[in-house]
Amino acid sequence: MKLLVVDTLEAAREKMMKAMGSWQMESEKVWISEALGRVLAENVYSRNPVPDFRRSSVDGYAVRAKDTQGASESLPAFLEVVEEVFMGEEARSVIISGQCAYVPTGGMIPEGADAMVMVEYCESFDEDNIAVYDAVSPGRNMVGIGEDMQADTMLLSRGVVVRAQEIGALASAGIRIVSVYKEMRLTIISTGDELVDAENLPGKGQIYDINTCALKALAEKHGFKVVRTMVLRDDEALLKEAVRDAMQISDMVVVSGGSSQGKKDVTAKVIDELGTPGVFTHGLALKPGKPTIGGYDTESETMLIGLPGHPVAAMMVFELICVWVLEELTGKKKRKEIRASMETNVASAPGKATCQLVELLENEEGYVARPIFGKSGLITTLTRADGYTIIDVNKEGLKPGEVVKVQLF
Amino acid sequence: MKLLVVDTLEAAREKMMKAMGSWQMESEKVWISEALGRVLAENVYSRNPVPDFRRSSVDGYAVRAKDTQGASESLPAFLEVVEEVFMGEEARSVIISGQCAYVPTGGMIPEGADAMVMVEYCESFDEDNIAVYDAVSPGRNMVGIGEDMQADTMLLSRGVVVRAQEIGALASAGIRIVSVYKEMRLTIISTGDELVDAENLPGKGQIYDINTCALKALAEKHGFKVVRTMVLRDDEALLKEAVRDAMQISDMVVVSGGSSQGKKDVTAKVIDELGTPGVFTHGLALKPGKPTIGGYDTESETMLIGLPGHPVAAMMVFELICVWVLEELTGKKKRKEIRASMETNVASAPGKATCQLVELLENEEGYVARPIFGKSGLITTLTRADGYTIIDVNKEGLKPGEVVKVQLF
Repeated sequence: MKLLVVDTLEAAREKMMKAMGSWQMESEKVWISEALGRVLAENVYSRNPVPDFRRSSVDGYAVRAKDTQGASESLPAFLEVVEEVFMGEEARSVIISGQCAYVPTGGMIPEGADAMVMVEYCESFDEDNIAVYDAVSPGRNMVGIGEDMQADTMLLSRGVVVRAQEIGALASAGIRIVSVYKEMRLTIISTGDELVDAENLPGKGQIYDINTCALKALAEKHGFKVVRTMVLRDDEALLKEAVRDAMQISDMVVVSGGSSQGKKDVTAKVIDELGTPGVFTHGLALKPGKPTIGGYDTESETMLIGLPGHPVAAMMVFELICVWVLEELTGKKKRKEIRASMETNVASAPGKATCQLVELLENEEGYVARPIFGKSGLITTLTRADGYTIIDVNKEGLKPGEVVKVQLF
Repeated sequence: MKLLVVDTLEAAREKMMKAMGSWQMESEKVWISEALGRVLAENVYSRNPVPDFRRSSVDGYAVRAKDTQGASESLPAFLEVVEEVFMGEEARSVIISGQCAYVPTGGMIPEGADAMVMVEYCESFDEDNIAVYDAVSPGRNMVGIGEDMQADTMLLSRGVVVRAQEIGALASAGIRIVSVYKEMRLTIISTGDELVDAENLPGKGQIYDINTCALKALAEKHGFKVVRTMVLRDDEALLKEAVRDAMQISDMVVVSGGSSQGKKDVTAKVIDELGTPGVFTHGLALKPGKPTIGGYDTESETMLIGLPGHPVAAMMVFELICVWVLEELTGKKKRKEIRASMETNVASAPGKATCQLVELLENEEGYVARPIFGKSGLITTLTRADGYTIIDVNKEGLKPGEVVKVQLF
């Protein structure tokens, strides 16, 4: 049995980006209402100033501020009301000295006026005239053109994940179609003679395949489009055919299982035969996650990844390699991490990074990270985990009280 | 103009739960592959032990541990190989003293054997016999029945949001159908004479409606099912008809705009006329978010919520009232908050809670929260925000360096 010559996580990532060369994410145009969760493929500039007319922020009278100079409870200014502006309608008058117009909150302020007096400070004394008991300065109680957003300024940048508020901002800037990255097409293959898929019942000595459904869910959460999942027996010819097919419809193919160096571990061989340059990383200095394969095919432009068969290790490597690549290519903003202090010590082997699962508990000071131990085959450990922290390759472990960054699942 | 008699956020929430009485979320059964992001409606117990047979965790020989006692490099134990177990197949032999069987990683360990010896410590000396150079104790190099999960133990509890790893754990426990809460049906109505929906072009004095699309996106992120969105003119009869229709197909109806006490603010009147008991909260001690209405109709079992017209305030109140109710009813685990230290001071008025938008910046120590100021009508402030922090009703503001909890959007 050959030993794996391991790469650090960083080296494996670097080799992947190098192999991919000038690989570009494709983009597509979508209606903003369909853009939730998608990643912007280009900077977005506002089309119109927002608002594009001067809006009142109170119910009251639009005035020339100068006309109210010196006005007070005891000495009102008297103004002629020349218009009542209705919500959603254009103001028609041009206010000259001595005149004003009624404008509701959100209504359009007529030309000539440069401030609003709140209705509470005004009094009608006949049908066409009011007394104003408040002196206002120009710009008072109104939102100017472009005050929320100037025209032609950058509203959102490439790599922004569209949330509800981005949709709102786009709508208000008059933008209804945006360019977002196409979802990365992914095929997931799980191999193992002992595996049965979730549609079948396992016989003695067999187990349910966990990896296809867990990886599919994980991938979809991160914005991949899963085009196909397959559960295969350990058979080189079968795997080769499946990967060859998958390469035609996928940007990335992941194969879990068969990624080590045993007799039946044929994933690396298959990737090497089907891809050019083929395998560039076999073995990661990561625990769990050592039996990981990084490969690429230039002609079909497909990333070919071998993941460990153990579900927990497979999910961790998927997060650290596959999701990382997607984030790198789209310029997607990194997710926020939570700082927490370790509850107990954790040992780790220097020379490889350790991906430690933790549960987060809250106390007065903040979060405490409780390490979750368990063999990497035990999927129940993952259900208790809120996230994970990476122990650096050069560290020998974590001490109680040490502050770590936790990436939430 | 009547002044609003405000409730605290807590009082408004309490009144809502009281009005709803014994309201129950409905549940439905789904395949686990469809359950991602849904909330479990009942505790889930494992059906089978996992694994349900004794699995080897190495390539090697299944032995009776006793037979290897004292075995070493210089003094091997000699055993007869009676079977080669294949992956995914049942072991057929029963190992008695002096016998062993080859078992690959993940394979089934035959009856009688109680430990595995790694192949590296064994040597074949003829076709049917091996020398074992390692002494193993019972249970070594194997995973016992139920070691990952016992049968009939609680695997996941009600209120758990299903992630990829929960799907994996369910699959491995032999569970393929789970009971999840039905999505809460929501109708969103935005009112205002100045509003045009995103399908149309605004004329002078009109603006795009932001609230329907922003609230829809926000609601869907939190697991609501948006059954209808509408943009209406400020017209009491029109609103009444729309709300009456919406009550027939919704669990919750939100109306943004018209929720204050002005002449055209008819939302409270409409909710009071259509619902029994109708309005129970009108006005929140929250900034932004004062013009909020809480109401309920017992007969149709519909929550009737009036939100402020300003987009930022509408979104904040939706998070703090509507999402809160959903989380309360489903027992959904609270989202994790991030602790951050304030970059600058923020003033707030005692007597009302303040919802302060912040941007999170990272430094050596952790996160710094930079407050984002801006009128609540300005949706661009929300696109810069990573989240918000609530300044308590009894506080006068936040000091620089003060540690706050930030809820991410």
